[in-house]
Amino acid sequence: MGVALDTVRAFIAAAEAKDLVRAAELLHDDVRYENVPVDPIVGRDATLGMMEMFLSSASAIEWQVLRELEVGDVVMNERLDRFRINDGWLDLPVAGVFEVVDGRITLWRDYFDMNTYMTRLAELTAGS
Amino acid sequence: MGVALDTVRAFIAAAEAKDLVRAAELLHDDVRYENVPVDPIVGRDATLGMMEMFLSSASAIEWQVLRELEVGDVVMNERLDRFRINDGWLDLPVAGVFEVVDGRITLWRDYFDMNTYMTRLAELTAGS
Repeated sequence: MGVALDTVRAFIAAAEAKDLVRAAELLHDDVRYENVPVDPIVGRDATLGMMEMFLSSASAIEWQVLRELEVGDVVMNERLDRFRINDGWLDLPVAGVFEVVDGRITLWRDYFDMNTYMTRLAELTAGS
Repeated sequence: MGVALDTVRAFIAAAEAKDLVRAAELLHDDVRYENVPVDPIVGRDATLGMMEMFLSSASAIEWQVLRELEVGDVVMNERLDRFRINDGWLDLPVAGVFEVVDGRITLWRDYFDMNTYMTRLAELTAGS
């Protein structure tokens, strides 16, 4: 395992622990964070702001890595990103792409189906 | 480059050429084809049937591979799948996962945002 995969694994663990201090250490100042269906976010502070928003909306986070490939400075993984919201789990299948430079993530790009996320979120928050 | 990547590249070229005979040679009998937001398709004939449907709806196909990682029998790629429909292009960002055994694809899984596809398809076919 190289530095890139090591960094990505540590970052996912930080997200699951909702540890934004640790997450910040693993992000480059100029990181680019792309949820493919929506506009990219640029910069560490903006990325942490977005993370805080979706991490705080869940009472627990599990990002299960189902597969991960590392070639040089690039990691691609398949994940099931799970968010505990009220009485249920929102399970989102994701394919992620990460570029890592000197132990810091410079690119984080997630491919997923936005409607899968929105539909389940609406179910879990209905009436609350 | 190993057999897995070679096979995936040949398969994408076959799709772009709308060459279903060549595509069939590169698919395992029991291939599993998953567009993540919808139900999986199992088997070569069913996969070719689905391919025929979306290839025939486009007057030209370009699947631009933006990045590809190969580790053993697995390939992951980032693509911009482009479909020429009437007077415009439908551009769909995709992350793909392929498993290859003996030069034949046993798993083809694409992650993408279904609404990106449906919205642009509606624009391009409006009034036609």
